[in-house]
Amino acid sequence: MPAPLIALDWGTTRARAFLIDGDGAVRERRSADQGVQSVPEGGFPAAFAGLAGDLRRAAPEAAILLAGMVGSRNGWVEAPYVACPAAPADIASAAITVALGDGGKAAVLPGLSCDDGAFDVMRGEETLIVGLGLADGLVCLPGTHAKWALVEGGRIARFASFMTGEVYGLLRQHSILARLAAEPVGDDAATGTALGLSAARRPGGLLNAAFAARTEVLAGRMAPGAVGPYLSALVVGHEIAGAKALFAGAGMLSLVADGALAESYGAALTAAELPFSLTTPEAAFVAGARRLAAEMAR
Amino acid sequence: MPAPLIALDWGTTRARAFLIDGDGAVRERRSADQGVQSVPEGGFPAAFAGLAGDLRRAAPEAAILLAGMVGSRNGWVEAPYVACPAAPADIASAAITVALGDGGKAAVLPGLSCDDGAFDVMRGEETLIVGLGLADGLVCLPGTHAKWALVEGGRIARFASFMTGEVYGLLRQHSILARLAAEPVGDDAATGTALGLSAARRPGGLLNAAFAARTEVLAGRMAPGAVGPYLSALVVGHEIAGAKALFAGAGMLSLVADGALAESYGAALTAAELPFSLTTPEAAFVAGARRLAAEMAR
Repeated sequence: MPAPLIALDWGTTRARAFLIDGDGAVRERRSADQGVQSVPEGGFPAAFAGLAGDLRRAAPEAAILLAGMVGSRNGWVEAPYVACPAAPADIASAAITVALGDGGKAAVLPGLSCDDGAFDVMRGEETLIVGLGLADGLVCLPGTHAKWALVEGGRIARFASFMTGEVYGLLRQHSILARLAAEPVGDDAATGTALGLSAARRPGGLLNAAFAARTEVLAGRMAPGAVGPYLSALVVGHEIAGAKALFAGAGMLSLVADGALAESYGAALTAAELPFSLTTPEAAFVAGARRLAAEMAR
Repeated sequence: MPAPLIALDWGTTRARAFLIDGDGAVRERRSADQGVQSVPEGGFPAAFAGLAGDLRRAAPEAAILLAGMVGSRNGWVEAPYVACPAAPADIASAAITVALGDGGKAAVLPGLSCDDGAFDVMRGEETLIVGLGLADGLVCLPGTHAKWALVEGGRIARFASFMTGEVYGLLRQHSILARLAAEPVGDDAATGTALGLSAARRPGGLLNAAFAARTEVLAGRMAPGAVGPYLSALVVGHEIAGAKALFAGAGMLSLVADGALAESYGAALTAAELPFSLTTPEAAFVAGARRLAAEMAR
């Protein structure tokens, strides 16, 4: 059985730390608001000790793997992007070693870049994609900046980002629609979702369909509580339509999500007649970290 | 020769007042930040006197026409929407008379509604559309909430709104892209516009192409000064694509714009191979107010 592994998904605003036993079971997990942007210069060894020092004491023999924005220019050390197409071995071999405060070592994973006409990058999602263990398929990772990635022959062939979560937040919190919207009550969520998925298919596009939330509420045809679910379904529907166009003919789709995002993307994918399998982000991250650690140990 | 006319385009945040001679020449014009939202309840007669009292003293015999949000629920009086299709005579006959502080009278114009699958409304733009004097054609009115309207047989047949200007502002000022963007210098505007118009045609859609501004700048392939022009061209390009889909087969296009919007929409319409004629908002408003005043005088 392989040795245990300490793996951190260390993003801009949050960090998640896992102590993973040799058999793949998660023995301990931590989550903290201590994202990369909150760590002062030179403060990463101390931040790591705060996040995962107890995990390290519990398993001093464990290898340590750090994924996400921790490998960016503003992170612990810059691990330059690996260009797609990229196999797990390519990602593992581009990791950069850093020294912990206690004299130990950790491996900082690189992100991926893709130059498919438009340049695009990811950091952290590559580990989740690797964790799915796909030979061929399409992967959807919802989020503030959602990613879709195509896997071919075990390599991440290309990918694309969508500003879905961020544009939803801007429309819901900062646009003229914010003043009309209310928290969903009763069947507002179901009604708004159905209307938004339908509106995503209208020919006028996102800029036209977003404005319709205002006029539908003013006309008394949509409840204020349905505006948020409408906008969410609308932007997710547009993301899926764009991804279908970019990745036409790709194989089976894997959705990596849980909670509300799993529900909203699940409904939108079903409406778009895209069958999918569902994996939680934790399961995908843990499996991906183990796979990349195994590649590094070779 | 008809009598002179005082016409106000009185919107949410701004008011424009014109004293128009009987031959159509604009004798005086005023513009003020005194939009409908800044007028306290019961304060419209005084606000009108502040905006146009001198015009009224200069031409006491002039009829007075008020267009825009001044006719909304939060305006002077609510002039209910006229449903499309709507002829100039339908709009004129739905005007509501209000009493000025000096005992005179003014006519408050209604807006239009359209229920073409999605419900939509406009207030103020109908006057500009009427001013174009079209028998048949398509009209584009750029703005925070841009409008496209189809005119058939001299009537406004249907129309659609696009949140173009507002979404541009949200992306440019409040998204992750705001931190990367800078004021354009040198050929940033031309470069950003060309890249944005090209990106608007990419299959991934708006949510994908907007994010590309970030990665292109991070990769050193786009200047920070080009981000704003890129985003502007991107959303305008998406609006035009949506309008083409909604109004396929419509006749000649009239663009009602001046200044920077005339430039950016002109470039985007040319890129979309949509020939157009250009009219300034002032010319369209003045002609529309005269036409509607003439209908009322019948």
